[in-house]
Amino acid sequence: MSDAAPSPRTRARRLHEKAAYDRDTINAILDAMPVAHVGHVVDGFPVVTPTLQWREGDRIYWHGSSASRMQKRAADAQVCVTVTLTDGMLLARSGLEHSVNYRCVMVFGQAEVVEGPAAKEAHLKEMMDQLFPGRWEALRPITAQELKATRILSLPLTEASAKISAGPPLDPPEDVTWPVWAGVLPIHLTMGAPEPAPDLAPGIALPNHAAKYRFGVSSQED
Amino acid sequence: MSDAAPSPRTRARRLHEKAAYDRDTINAILDAMPVAHVGHVVDGFPVVTPTLQWREGDRIYWHGSSASRMQKRAADAQVCVTVTLTDGMLLARSGLEHSVNYRCVMVFGQAEVVEGPAAKEAHLKEMMDQLFPGRWEALRPITAQELKATRILSLPLTEASAKISAGPPLDPPEDVTWPVWAGVLPIHLTMGAPEPAPDLAPGIALPNHAAKYRFGVSSQED
Repeated sequence: MSDAAPSPRTRARRLHEKAAYDRDTINAILDAMPVAHVGHVVDGFPVVTPTLQWREGDRIYWHGSSASRMQKRAADAQVCVTVTLTDGMLLARSGLEHSVNYRCVMVFGQAEVVEGPAAKEAHLKEMMDQLFPGRWEALRPITAQELKATRILSLPLTEASAKISAGPPLDPPEDVTWPVWAGVLPIHLTMGAPEPAPDLAPGIALPNHAAKYRFGVSSQED
Repeated sequence: MSDAAPSPRTRARRLHEKAAYDRDTINAILDAMPVAHVGHVVDGFPVVTPTLQWREGDRIYWHGSSASRMQKRAADAQVCVTVTLTDGMLLARSGLEHSVNYRCVMVFGQAEVVEGPAAKEAHLKEMMDQLFPGRWEALRPITAQELKATRILSLPLTEASAKISAGPPLDPPEDVTWPVWAGVLPIHLTMGAPEPAPDLAPGIALPNHAAKYRFGVSSQED
């Protein structure tokens, strides 16, 4: 894949044949997996927190409570946002060739805070349209107090890189004849039957956007 | 849940009603999700890398290449290992109550290197027995060179905490009557049909351990 790493810390040192730096590859992974792990440095030690991310063009966004320690510390600080999809278990002929097929994006940079209620509301609508499509217009409208209590952070994709491991196990020729089954056990994220809230008012049917929801692919279908 | 956080950095600041510090809860999450995100501090900035973790009693382990920059840096350094299961999307009556049901464990501490080929082989066998049960004895035996090329790191569960979000959306009473469907869209990790390696020798049937493989639950069934 591409060699054009946008910065030294973004360049893959290991397994560089799996690395990619083109925006289409990076975008496709970010759009397919809303769950990100955000890394901060707190008093010198690393802290990794899961959160939902969404992409708007050349930036990713995530949000949280204005009172959150992590949200406060991440603002204007260096962060690493990592998004990983686990696609399959690789069963090889030797133990050390066992591995995982995955798609992963790492984004480095200085997190920026979205300022102002209008901008915040616009980004939250975008978040909903991507992560929970079809909902925003049907919801109880957002309040000024809720906007105030929400901090939205973002990161440009300038220092982003992808790593992809796909395909069958690649045992060396001398191992291929070892008499053990080898191959891939694919892993999928699937949706279970929707569970209506116990306090759902009678007569509210399951809407199409909930019945057809697919984790991480909704935004691609828009 | 429990208030007995084992250390200040382990204590949940936000959503502390979702926090748990008991070992059974922590172990169950670690055993259900092999994919971890390991956070390091590199030249002052955070780096978050996905890897496979496995648990042996009161410690978690992960491994990689001895040549890996991350593996070298993690040894004897402070790390944060975070394991997250995404269980469902929460559709509420307002945008900001939309969320994710999840189970998450964070482990802080100083990573330790497993030293010596015998110890390394024992831990790699344990890894295989947990992550790929039923394979180790059938594989081409591990070599001295492979053991040398592998670095295994571990972390005690001393500073571990769990956070669990489960159940229906909890809209405030004044929102419950808003005329929109609310509930949970469950997310499951499921296995697709096994894909034999293209170079698989003829006559090797799919073994039971591959046919019945369930991501993240194999170790619990042992």
